[in-house]
Amino acid sequence: MIKDKINSKTKAIIYISPNCPTGSVFPEEDLKSLAEIALENEIFIITDEIYENLVYDGEKHISIGSLSELKDQTISMFGFSKAYAMTGWRIGYLTASGNLVKNFVEIHAQIAICANSVAQKAALAALTGPQECVEKMRKEYEERRNLFARGLNDLNIRCQNPKGSFYVYANISELGISGLEFAKKLAEEAKIISYPGTAFTTDESGPSYIRFAYTKTQDRLKTAIERIETVVNKI
Amino acid sequence: MIKDKINSKTKAIIYISPNCPTGSVFPEEDLKSLAEIALENEIFIITDEIYENLVYDGEKHISIGSLSELKDQTISMFGFSKAYAMTGWRIGYLTASGNLVKNFVEIHAQIAICANSVAQKAALAALTGPQECVEKMRKEYEERRNLFARGLNDLNIRCQNPKGSFYVYANISELGISGLEFAKKLAEEAKIISYPGTAFTTDESGPSYIRFAYTKTQDRLKTAIERIETVVNKI
Repeated sequence: MIKDKINSKTKAIIYISPNCPTGSVFPEEDLKSLAEIALENEIFIITDEIYENLVYDGEKHISIGSLSELKDQTISMFGFSKAYAMTGWRIGYLTASGNLVKNFVEIHAQIAICANSVAQKAALAALTGPQECVEKMRKEYEERRNLFARGLNDLNIRCQNPKGSFYVYANISELGISGLEFAKKLAEEAKIISYPGTAFTTDESGPSYIRFAYTKTQDRLKTAIERIETVVNKI
Repeated sequence: MIKDKINSKTKAIIYISPNCPTGSVFPEEDLKSLAEIALENEIFIITDEIYENLVYDGEKHISIGSLSELKDQTISMFGFSKAYAMTGWRIGYLTASGNLVKNFVEIHAQIAICANSVAQKAALAALTGPQECVEKMRKEYEERRNLFARGLNDLNIRCQNPKGSFYVYANISELGISGLEFAKKLAEEAKIISYPGTAFTTDESGPSYIRFAYTKTQDRLKTAIERIETVVNKI
């Protein structure tokens, strides 16, 4: 329980939804519970909502800052890297109460002066231009997810069909090796990059998990599944 | 004396040359003395050499890292903002020994992942393209400096002809008001932006100084001098 982890030193709760590495999307009731905890304990909620546009199966992304009673206690972060595939532009933004933003700007100005001005114009073009590309990409990712998650499950690499982002966080305990060992084999034998669960968590579940990103074309993903199969068959 | 300021807690000396705000360019003998101090005390030299291309009167910019005995103790920083007028692109680089760079990359990757990739390509184009523009701009700045520094001295705002960067750091003690008061007057009455010396130093010289950037066209600088004269005459 999150509630039990809070003590007098707790300043904020930070979360990512849609999530990396699991692909889960926090439902409204969970966000409302989180909001309650934040209000009760007078702590901030800091969110990473970079994958807000990549949600599937009719799920809806909800920004916790939109729960009006929490808006002065929320620092919500967004970006252009995912929805508009503008990763290389390194541009994002946040919303928070005016007092907080004033302090952020002060620090940001000293560290960075400003975000790359060309990237700012590119972000503006992305926001004000036609938006069909976002839905087109979302749909494409949904198909990739279906294809890739099914392929993994067929190889006894267990994962749900994640509701958001572009990751599958799969349980490999049936393979009899750790996520780190498996990730190394995939890199060396199949030229596939993955991240072991231990890169994301220090708890005991870590070694049983591996994270894949399904950001390649469906053809490449099919090839990936074939190569993963070859590696699995040799374990 | 810098030497006397060093104690067991001193880790590094950081300097800017060509300098902001003074426009001075550290001569070779000073850099050699600094290098000696760094070697003797086993401390780092961290440099900001962003204005390296903007030096005048036949002066030469010397990078302290090029003194071979010091190269493993130097972190030298450069950028594209000044020489190529690429301020908005937010792109620069540093040189240091391999061990240091390895650690910097680790931290940089966590904070920024990478510099904007479009800006990286633009920087490459700047470096590999024709370089005449750099000398053309340097010459233009030299003329602006001559015009602006002369104009200030004619108004009893005392400054040398600085050897580098694009700033004049002028002594206004003859005006009978502080740099901060003068900067406010210039902003309000003449729409000219300057920085009081107190923005750069907490020592007793601060209130007697003001910094101007002569980055505008010569025509605009002439207008600026006229407007400054109007303000000075009303004090």
